[in-house]
Amino acid sequence: MSWTDAINAADFEAIAVERLPAGTLGYFAGGAADERALRDNAAAYARRRLRARVLVDVEHVATDTTILGLPVSMPLLVPPMALQRMAHPDGEVATARAAAAAGTLFTLSTLASSRPQEISEHAPAAPRWFQIYMLRDRAVTRALCDEAAAHAFNGFVLTVDAPRPGRRERDLRTGFRVPPDVEMPAMRAVLGADACPSPQDFFALVDPGVTWDTVAQLAEELEGPLILKGIQTAEDAELACEHGASAVVVSNHGGRQLDAAGATIDLLEEVVDAVAGRIEVYVDGGVRRGSDVVTALGLGARAVLMGRPVLWALAAGGEPAVARLLELMRAEIELTLSLIGASSPAAVTRRHVAP
Amino acid sequence: MSWTDAINAADFEAIAVERLPAGTLGYFAGGAADERALRDNAAAYARRRLRARVLVDVEHVATDTTILGLPVSMPLLVPPMALQRMAHPDGEVATARAAAAAGTLFTLSTLASSRPQEISEHAPAAPRWFQIYMLRDRAVTRALCDEAAAHAFNGFVLTVDAPRPGRRERDLRTGFRVPPDVEMPAMRAVLGADACPSPQDFFALVDPGVTWDTVAQLAEELEGPLILKGIQTAEDAELACEHGASAVVVSNHGGRQLDAAGATIDLLEEVVDAVAGRIEVYVDGGVRRGSDVVTALGLGARAVLMGRPVLWALAAGGEPAVARLLELMRAEIELTLSLIGASSPAAVTRRHVAP
Amino acid sequence: MSWTDAINAADFEAIAVERLPAGTLGYFAGGAADERALRDNAAAYARRRLRARVLVDVEHVATDTTILGLPVSMPLLVPPMALQRMAHPDGEVATARAAAAAGTLFTLSTLASSRPQEISEHAPAAPRWFQIYMLRDRAVTRALCDEAAAHAFNGFVLTVDAPRPGRRERDLRTGFRVPPDVEMPAMRAVLGADACPSPQDFFALVDPGVTWDTVAQLAEELEGPLILKGIQTAEDAELACEHGASAVVVSNHGGRQLDAAGATIDLLEEVVDAVAGRIEVYVDGGVRRGSDVVTALGLGARAVLMGRPVLWALAAGGEPAVARLLELMRAEIELTLSLIGASSPAAVTRRHVAP
Amino acid sequence: MSWTDAINAADFEAIAVERLPAGTLGYFAGGAADERALRDNAAAYARRRLRARVLVDVEHVATDTTILGLPVSMPLLVPPMALQRMAHPDGEVATARAAAAAGTLFTLSTLASSRPQEISEHAPAAPRWFQIYMLRDRAVTRALCDEAAAHAFNGFVLTVDAPRPGRRERDLRTGFRVPPDVEMPAMRAVLGADACPSPQDFFALVDPGVTWDTVAQLAEELEGPLILKGIQTAEDAELACEHGASAVVVSNHGGRQLDAAGATIDLLEEVVDAVAGRIEVYVDGGVRRGSDVVTALGLGARAVLMGRPVLWALAAGGEPAVARLLELMRAEIELTLSLIGASSPAAVTRRHVAP
Repeated sequence: MSWTDAINAADFEAIAVERLPAGTLGYFAGGAADERALRDNAAAYARRRLRARVLVDVEHVATDTTILGLPVSMPLLVPPMALQRMAHPDGEVATARAAAAAGTLFTLSTLASSRPQEISEHAPAAPRWFQIYMLRDRAVTRALCDEAAAHAFNGFVLTVDAPRPGRRERDLRTGFRVPPDVEMPAMRAVLGADACPSPQDFFALVDPGVTWDTVAQLAEELEGPLILKGIQTAEDAELACEHGASAVVVSNHGGRQLDAAGATIDLLEEVVDAVAGRIEVYVDGGVRRGSDVVTALGLGARAVLMGRPVLWALAAGGEPAVARLLELMRAEIELTLSLIGASSPAAVTRRHVAP
Repeated sequence: MSWTDAINAADFEAIAVERLPAGTLGYFAGGAADERALRDNAAAYARRRLRARVLVDVEHVATDTTILGLPVSMPLLVPPMALQRMAHPDGEVATARAAAAAGTLFTLSTLASSRPQEISEHAPAAPRWFQIYMLRDRAVTRALCDEAAAHAFNGFVLTVDAPRPGRRERDLRTGFRVPPDVEMPAMRAVLGADACPSPQDFFALVDPGVTWDTVAQLAEELEGPLILKGIQTAEDAELACEHGASAVVVSNHGGRQLDAAGATIDLLEEVVDAVAGRIEVYVDGGVRRGSDVVTALGLGARAVLMGRPVLWALAAGGEPAVARLLELMRAEIELTLSLIGASSPAAVTRRHVAP
Repeated sequence: MSWTDAINAADFEAIAVERLPAGTLGYFAGGAADERALRDNAAAYARRRLRARVLVDVEHVATDTTILGLPVSMPLLVPPMALQRMAHPDGEVATARAAAAAGTLFTLSTLASSRPQEISEHAPAAPRWFQIYMLRDRAVTRALCDEAAAHAFNGFVLTVDAPRPGRRERDLRTGFRVPPDVEMPAMRAVLGADACPSPQDFFALVDPGVTWDTVAQLAEELEGPLILKGIQTAEDAELACEHGASAVVVSNHGGRQLDAAGATIDLLEEVVDAVAGRIEVYVDGGVRRGSDVVTALGLGARAVLMGRPVLWALAAGGEPAVARLLELMRAEIELTLSLIGASSPAAVTRRHVAP
Repeated sequence: MSWTDAINAADFEAIAVERLPAGTLGYFAGGAADERALRDNAAAYARRRLRARVLVDVEHVATDTTILGLPVSMPLLVPPMALQRMAHPDGEVATARAAAAAGTLFTLSTLASSRPQEISEHAPAAPRWFQIYMLRDRAVTRALCDEAAAHAFNGFVLTVDAPRPGRRERDLRTGFRVPPDVEMPAMRAVLGADACPSPQDFFALVDPGVTWDTVAQLAEELEGPLILKGIQTAEDAELACEHGASAVVVSNHGGRQLDAAGATIDLLEEVVDAVAGRIEVYVDGGVRRGSDVVTALGLGARAVLMGRPVLWALAAGGEPAVARLLELMRAEIELTLSLIGASSPAAVTRRHVAP
């Protein structure tokens, strides 16, 4: 199948599975341990049901919304994903350009194979965030943020669910190593070529001792909002509100960290209830359909982040394939809104989701 | 297998699957997106249990009932289904004649490949409804209803769950196109041959902006009762009562519209409770057995509509096959009533269904 | 596999499946319609859990109990099953002799291929019941009971869940007919050879109009206790107590009548609660393990009836095979009692079954 | 696969399955009857979810804890398992040495193919328990304990869920017999070579009439704490506290005794609640992952015992393979603690486990 024949997100996966080398495929597709969380993220959406209201005027259905004040074409954003040049030579640039074309937000990973400047040059229109880890050397984290800020990134996503890397057994099985020509230029620019570790060894730089106080300090220093990715409990949602976060992403790192984590859509409600409107809440993990997005909206998310299908589209056909995927998703969101009688994301309520 | 050997509804499906071209089969069999609702409609019946009462006099068990005052031989009706000439050259006429022979109600779709006059001529004895969409051009809707009324249709079924067509991915996979010789004569008669779209493009005529006020107005104008098909919530059931509907069909369009919709038998109770006896409630989707029908009765439906098996029988053997299917279903309903100690549909109560 | 190698009930089934002609196998093994009740009867036991108590003295564990005052070696009885000569030339006589050897109760069906006199002659030691239907001609029912009473049958089991025969689709598929040499001698003795129908047509004699008053009258007339088989609800359990029954069997006829019936072990508790100790309660359907029996005891049954495995053993090796099966079951019951810390059936309580 | 390539517990099983003779494999792998409890022990962990807390300082995560005051490197212990020389010529000695190397506790079975003295000689550093049955001849039990005490065993595990051996049908299928060269030297030393039964006949020595009073007496006599293995209910947990036990193991004997027993992780909470901190609670059965261990800690266990994977590692590669397995498990526990924000076993609370 060519990606031009793809009619839904699953199709792009089928194409990418054929096309990527086993090691790279395992790296992108895999989760931790037995991949329970990986599977359950998606399966949990299939257990949800929407309550369709009828005879609502849906002549005009809008999918656009705002994310921390930033206008986006739909409540589906592109999350940080590492080393996208392993999926396609154009890597993050292609993804960012496709997101820009689709009118939605792109997030650049600290582990990206492209640096912030490339994104701002090649995809200037993309609303964009930069993802960071809290490194042992705070100055490095700071320098990364500074470069991102210099290139007009609109927010900073701090990953909080990975004090240590999860155990990705697929990588151990395939003996996967990042190809030597795939680098982390953002890291290298800050650390210098000699001091920059290989992507494999990146986690040695991450500080597993970070606590909420550090987060509060970071929130004050950054030139832009701080989004915490990896919140799974009401308790931490409350702490996020108290420590300067502008938003949280309910996430289990796509099932790549704690395999015993709950499905994110099942964790969303307790986080939304704890936050009580003080900050924005997003969710990622397992999103494959427009109806998944609308389910998340109904349970209180302002948007979802959808990762792996974007990688599959990137591998399948680069920028135009990603753009095609994002348009398919937008159309599915629009159709789902129409069919439940909601003319915009804001019109979706908890009553639209079956208990 | 010949249809004369068919002993239950599933057998007719097996025959039709062998016999129909892939595209046509996909069109009739398919649902939206991942076909979750399609599968769950049927699976939900298999999760239900009846509570059999014994030592009740079931020497005489009657299956007949009335639908909006119209006598029918059983609480199982034939719903609107489009373009039945794709299943069999005799199309809707065969189905209507079989329904008439079985003593039950037939519904003609606006998208039918036969027009109301043909039904009245060839199946004059059939109690019958006409199904409509609210079109952008209200005069067309009105003209369609007028023709139906002129041919003694007994009620009007307004489909309310399809402001836009669902995404039927099987059709996209097969590249299905309605054969050029299969037309929508009712539509053509009203619009004229030149202005009449192909069935593929029909939905461009449908008005996605319709609201309850329009329904109330329609209910007043029509020469016959208005039945709303596609109600899924207590909220809309209440609104249906308030806006002139004579009945509602709890339906998710056979899983062809919102894929995240609940199984209809699971939605029935909240609708029945909301309606509280003010109007009649029917249910469609997933009915394959007499025990499914009795389950729906127990949960408060006055009748069910069973669609796809009728199409499979039509494809398998035309009118006599449909008549055979309907008689098999009637016999199953009668047997189930006997075995739970209910001598008529009216004798079935909520206590007959396990909580 | 030879039956002498069988180590559990399932083994006998595997042997019988190899050995019986397809039609006969389908007749014995089959359930109604989609065989949901048939499967669920067994599956429901696998969903149950026992709560093992430890450090109870189980040096001596007794499995014997009494059934309506009749001593039996274990709380597992042989239910009525028709036409056992189709499974083995020795038919019901072999089964009765094996039950007698095992010290448990045997039930002769009205549809048996042996008559009461044969049982009393060849298995005089067997505690035994006779199963009846309420026939349109009450005198015939009465005459059957008289013959049973004359041959020292200890009780009468009235089947109440079959006012009409269930739809056994396996028989329709195989075109099964009872072989002409397999007869119903008990029926023939009463009706005369000319008036006696073939087993196929037996149900024409059954009266679907019987009600509780007739049962009360029958209970008064019979020379022995009346057991009602086929009770599924608290309501009917209450009525059974009020109309002279000495016991009820919670049963869905082995899944051969109402396919939408609940699993019998799941129905047991409401019947036990309704009866509140006034009469004895048994359960049949799906029993395959000693732990199933103990589960039923814990939920309030005084005994279970286990049918099909007995037929499989009969087909596999006649009387000695049935005796072997019954001994395996008794040993499993004894072991299960030991392992939950109960030294007798009476020591099993509802606390031994997980909620 | 060589065991040196094994990356998780399941890998060792795959290797052992290839390597062990069918009979031995069945003996070690099998459970009772239909092996429901065996399967459910593991499946129940996969149904559990942990609640990850983030931004907790996990720079230093310790897995060590104490068991009845004895320091161990992690909350995962090695339970008693019989006849380990059938898995590897070095048998229990290899296992004990690996446990000692890993810093955790080893338990020697009464049915071991090594005697206490061998363990103390070859694995002097291992914290160790000795497992006993209450034998009909109390003097034998006492003599076994004396020998264990003489070799510095730190506690005594009394198995209480096996008054009789479970029905292990795999052994019946394979006709398994313990090879004549595999003996029970601890038993033989006490009974003398002539009086010592074969392992097959061991259970004839076990007293099924033991009650709580005997346990209380034993607890007083022993030179060391008494741990009761096989507790499944709150009632028995309470009795254990009252009769001198220092700890209980929630266990269903690895699914080898009562097949209808609940999954042990599902039974843990009621036992923990009943004990209310008076004594220590452990759990065994189905543990395969570090997240399983942490789940058990969250539900109130002080440690888990993990049996079969140890046997598989032993069969796969003897002592170094067992050591490797134990280190993999310790690393998984450490990682899981990190990822839920707990810096030690003691930091795990019931709030870390989803309800």
